[in-house]
Amino acid sequence: MKVYLAGPDVFLPDAAAMAAEKKRLCALYGLEGVFPTDPRPDPAADAAPDLWYAIYLRNEAHIRACDALVANLTPFRGPSADAGTVYELGFMRALGRPVLGYSNDDADFSTRTRRFLGDAARRDAEGEWVDGEGLSLESFGLTDNLMIDGGIRAADGMLVRRAVPAAQRWSDLTGFEACLKALATRNG
Amino acid sequence: MKVYLAGPDVFLPDAAAMAAEKKRLCALYGLEGVFPTDPRPDPAADAAPDLWYAIYLRNEAHIRACDALVANLTPFRGPSADAGTVYELGFMRALGRPVLGYSNDDADFSTRTRRFLGDAARRDAEGEWVDGEGLSLESFGLTDNLMIDGGIRAADGMLVRRAVPAAQRWSDLTGFEACLKALATRNG
Repeated sequence: MKVYLAGPDVFLPDAAAMAAEKKRLCALYGLEGVFPTDPRPDPAADAAPDLWYAIYLRNEAHIRACDALVANLTPFRGPSADAGTVYELGFMRALGRPVLGYSNDDADFSTRTRRFLGDAARRDAEGEWVDGEGLSLESFGLTDNLMIDGGIRAADGMLVRRAVPAAQRWSDLTGFEACLKALATRNG
Repeated sequence: MKVYLAGPDVFLPDAAAMAAEKKRLCALYGLEGVFPTDPRPDPAADAAPDLWYAIYLRNEAHIRACDALVANLTPFRGPSADAGTVYELGFMRALGRPVLGYSNDDADFSTRTRRFLGDAARRDAEGEWVDGEGLSLESFGLTDNLMIDGGIRAADGMLVRRAVPAAQRWSDLTGFEACLKALATRNG
């Protein structure tokens, strides 16, 4: 079973080392990890004129060629997960394959959004949290926007949320490994 | 042609008025707008036990029942678009249907991310922008993470980026209408 390893890990200074470690863990559970920066599964495809678009097409081809997706949903430069990772999660869910995820921050989405907004967060006349422009906050106690938690639930996946010290949040793979274990068990 | 109206518009204090206005514009172009909070297309479906999950299932059912998606990608609480919207964009792209988007902020993703990071943004030894933890920034001059721009390009869609004063960025529908026009033209 090929597993697409979605996440902002591609932005790490030591992304290659992270790719190797995630693949090593996959192998322990009988899975084959596919990192976004791996060579295209379809090398004969026409080259895209722009580097960024070539990367897009490669990632899309990888997702289509994989049987499942495990996403690093640790909040990235704001209250939510990395946008590219979220796009890929929705993409794989639409293909009807298993999606799982982990976050190395155990605060719920509403709490993180209020921290992000600071003094701009307030309660409206009905007592609901809103931002400085009056746009409401999701306050369901979820890990992220309900489309993320919902997609994983709809796919019968697993969403692991753990408290990890800030300095280790881009390197700790405990939640990642829990997802692999769940996937391997389900896979028989 | 039914068009799913993705965006953080659902969080607006006057979301119902925005839904009505977007649908009115759709009708001008011969399109039928579907707002996320519209009643389920499949009312006979079993009710979900949790409100948030019922909302997820409703949105997913709406997307599956639509022929195209137009996303409000205006940056939302951070450098990227709203996470739920991004999930839905990836979902619809995987279904192989047209996806289009607009952003009421004309700054590119790298510029917005550097503004967000403030003094933490720096150049590494190779001259590339990185954040305070050494994670790189995408600097392709795109609207958002390359998966977003790439998905719209792969779907032969349109991505409109406009400078709109901050006070109007949640109400200005010029970019939205440009997407509708492109969709109607393409639709014949």
